[in-house]
Amino acid sequence: MSSKVEKRAKFEHVFTVIRDELVDFFKSQNLPQDATEWFAKNLDYNVPGGKLNRGLSVVDSVEILKRRSLTDEEYFKSAVLGWCVELLQAFFLVSDDLMDSSITRRSQPCWYRIEEVGYIAVNDAFLLESAIYWLLKKHFRADPAYINLIELFHETSLQTEIGQLLDLITAPEDKVDLSKFSLKRHSLIVVYKTAYYSFYLPVALAMYYCGISHNSTGEQDLYALASSILIPLGEYFQVQDDYLDFAGTPEQIGKIGTDIVDNKCSWCVNTALAVATPEQREVLDKNYGRKNAEAEKNVKEVFEAVGVRASYEEYEEKAYKRIIGLIETIPEGGSGKDGEVKLQRAVFKSFLDKIYKRQK
Amino acid sequence: MSSKVEKRAKFEHVFTVIRDELVDFFKSQNLPQDATEWFAKNLDYNVPGGKLNRGLSVVDSVEILKRRSLTDEEYFKSAVLGWCVELLQAFFLVSDDLMDSSITRRSQPCWYRIEEVGYIAVNDAFLLESAIYWLLKKHFRADPAYINLIELFHETSLQTEIGQLLDLITAPEDKVDLSKFSLKRHSLIVVYKTAYYSFYLPVALAMYYCGISHNSTGEQDLYALASSILIPLGEYFQVQDDYLDFAGTPEQIGKIGTDIVDNKCSWCVNTALAVATPEQREVLDKNYGRKNAEAEKNVKEVFEAVGVRASYEEYEEKAYKRIIGLIETIPEGGSGKDGEVKLQRAVFKSFLDKIYKRQK
Repeated sequence: MSSKVEKRAKFEHVFTVIRDELVDFFKSQNLPQDATEWFAKNLDYNVPGGKLNRGLSVVDSVEILKRRSLTDEEYFKSAVLGWCVELLQAFFLVSDDLMDSSITRRSQPCWYRIEEVGYIAVNDAFLLESAIYWLLKKHFRADPAYINLIELFHETSLQTEIGQLLDLITAPEDKVDLSKFSLKRHSLIVVYKTAYYSFYLPVALAMYYCGISHNSTGEQDLYALASSILIPLGEYFQVQDDYLDFAGTPEQIGKIGTDIVDNKCSWCVNTALAVATPEQREVLDKNYGRKNAEAEKNVKEVFEAVGVRASYEEYEEKAYKRIIGLIETIPEGGSGKDGEVKLQRAVFKSFLDKIYKRQK
Repeated sequence: MSSKVEKRAKFEHVFTVIRDELVDFFKSQNLPQDATEWFAKNLDYNVPGGKLNRGLSVVDSVEILKRRSLTDEEYFKSAVLGWCVELLQAFFLVSDDLMDSSITRRSQPCWYRIEEVGYIAVNDAFLLESAIYWLLKKHFRADPAYINLIELFHETSLQTEIGQLLDLITAPEDKVDLSKFSLKRHSLIVVYKTAYYSFYLPVALAMYYCGISHNSTGEQDLYALASSILIPLGEYFQVQDDYLDFAGTPEQIGKIGTDIVDNKCSWCVNTALAVATPEQREVLDKNYGRKNAEAEKNVKEVFEAVGVRASYEEYEEKAYKRIIGLIETIPEGGSGKDGEVKLQRAVFKSFLDKIYKRQK
């Protein structure tokens, strides 16, 4: 597979196939045209327009695990799993945007803000979730991994919902209470809300699809091993995201950071809270999560004064080294007997390389 | 099993068991106390307070199919499946109430109207849905029916979401357009939104749990046969519900009907539309779905003038006879070899008896 653009185009082509399968299912049930068109628009508006990192990483991981380029069928099935991850994300984003009263998503108005949609967005989110299981049944029913794939989506959905609950009760947009914040609480939210579905899910799907069983080594469960690397990796990724919201320029990150104004339980505020003097703490209490530029400026001054930038650099180096160390615990060498697929360090390295010192 | 009250109490006891299992799972993950308490309150507030007809009908159906009283374990597992149906309903009701801006549910404020809840209700609804699959995995993972149970919940969820979509785009509360209404559209909404999850789902769960396979007779698929009876039965049930909203007294139905004011795509308005003169049609167009008592009165006068009451009586007699006829297509006699469970007419008769000529 050559360039990034071609890779993305190939993956996007698979979306058009499964999108038509789903829409044809509605037609086959003799559902009226208005409902079928609504569902098609829901899919087209909410599923394909993102960065697709999560979906593409399923395909990438399968290629690394198999150590060869994929047949057309293998590519297609890996890509279907990738799109199921994107559908899961769309399910969460459509509903999160409504819960958070967000304005735009992927440079277009959030789905619930389309005039005729409104609260129907909640049910549309449910339909995106249901599409996952409909696709798994259609394409994997005969696969030995079928039940594992289903259970993995169930488990990951529950984890993400727990993360969303933690986030919502820790940092409600309209009620600032920094006493609820802490680096520990931040870590918990990030692991549940982001790391499981963004990092563990794509790799575990690839592993199941390649037929990796729960303890190929006879000793360690390889899924637990993968999780023990991917969860810290996901946490590192989200800390970066939080940091870039504060420190990245709009040119870098493609948006203006709003975490401070939105009372987000971000890594930056938790880092500041952990070392703030009583005076600095008072500034944070009085200015964090307030909807005005002056308050935001005051918070940013505290962030600079306590050295959030230096803390981040330190964090990043430590996180990187720790994850490298974890990756090296994966047993290497030998290609496995009878074409058996083995877990590869490269799966994890490819994630880490994409993330380390990213600026956007 | 003796009285209705005892039967309900026994079933409710199983809720306390699974509720504790779910809450203990949160505790075992070392989730913070505020999140665990929130989840417990979500379960307690939204799951157990309804009529429980759907949940109880799983247990009733298993008893009829097995033709004997159940062992403690059989009772417990049937009741877990029953509570999974109640969880599915709670998932839909919590989100529907928010989408419809409803005020009360089961004589208490709707969950989203609790002050600290608000939009968090959407994520709480997701957690209720996830609880279904967590419970199925815990209690049925080793059961040969496990994958069938999961797929049935997936399929039924999708059907119900399709029904909700049809309903929402046909009858938005704030935009009256009776040209979208028809008895055909009403039937489609009712079948998808109510009949599958309320009637087919409980019986099909009982059938899977009892080990009935997809074509025990060697000829007809027994699940398709059950569906061919339960879907018309569910449609009849919902037509009754619509009719009682108009014709039932508050003493009978325990609430004041609001379908006319709420622009509901009810059987009554569709029946009236089908026979209305141009003048009556104009009254309906101008008065249906309007938030005032005078308009509601004008609509009710048209309903009386076109004879909705007589149409309903005719509908009920025809529906009853048709369903009796369908039930009689089930092959009877013989207890099956080797304790094999056979489909029983009594499963369907017990539903029909509870519904026929009900006044509340």
